[in-house]
Amino acid sequence: MEIILMTVGRTTIDFVKEGIDEYIKRLRHYVPYTILELSDIKKGGKMSIPDQKEAEADIILGALRPTDYVILLDEHGKEYRSIEFAKAIEKIMASGYKRCVYIVGGAYGFSQRIYNIASQKLSLSKMTFNHEMVRLFFTEQVYRAMTILRGEPYHHE
Amino acid sequence: MEIILMTVGRTTIDFVKEGIDEYIKRLRHYVPYTILELSDIKKGGKMSIPDQKEAEADIILGALRPTDYVILLDEHGKEYRSIEFAKAIEKIMASGYKRCVYIVGGAYGFSQRIYNIASQKLSLSKMTFNHEMVRLFFTEQVYRAMTILRGEPYHHE
Repeated sequence: MEIILMTVGRTTIDFVKEGIDEYIKRLRHYVPYTILELSDIKKGGKMSIPDQKEAEADIILGALRPTDYVILLDEHGKEYRSIEFAKAIEKIMASGYKRCVYIVGGAYGFSQRIYNIASQKLSLSKMTFNHEMVRLFFTEQVYRAMTILRGEPYHHE
Repeated sequence: MEIILMTVGRTTIDFVKEGIDEYIKRLRHYVPYTILELSDIKKGGKMSIPDQKEAEADIILGALRPTDYVILLDEHGKEYRSIEFAKAIEKIMASGYKRCVYIVGGAYGFSQRIYNIASQKLSLSKMTFNHEMVRLFFTEQVYRAMTILRGEPYHHE
């Protein structure tokens, strides 16, 4: 199974890119992991927030495949401990999906159309983090999950 | 009031340092914020985990002042939404403390002596994050809190 982190908008902050690259490099030994950056909606300042969400939804839906297992990173999602998160990934892997796609939305959240097609919602924290940094935290957490599943000593309880 | 993030061990990862520097630079316009890195315990491999925690406790206690307001970053701590976190800082500021000290422990957590002197425990997430990255997440969250308290548009609910 491939794990994909789908994001609306590119990663522009240098230190975030460096951090993500570091964990992607480490993840190569464990699982295929890809960050799929979807092109951002042009911020002309003329689009309303609901219109922007719908335009983003079109782009997200265009990048998904019918056979994907879709999980949204969402503030109202379920919070997991790292070990529980690892076990949840393991379970999805065992279900035979080709791609497990985690999606980070834009600044205003997801359209209802995206909620409708998702199987799960995941929250990394009650706190709101910078949208780009979420990508870094998530990628480290996937790496941590892989070391947990292999019984490697990266993670301390 | 000065906000201090006290850490056991130095920050060694480059992208973490860059990220922290970015938010410290921004925080200058809002509040005195300092990261106080305490020297790490020598990892000779001979010290037991309880002994290491006690040695770290000695170092932490040596760096605290009797008038500090102490908050531990701890997995069993209270989770806050970003707005609640901002209001909690505001309340401490209003109480007249000179220093509000948030402490990130070593890999094995805190000695009971440190729990005894702390006023609060704060958890950033149910997930366990890399010990250095926690410093970055926390610093961004303090910056976010300051923009919330000033009603600035960095944070979206």
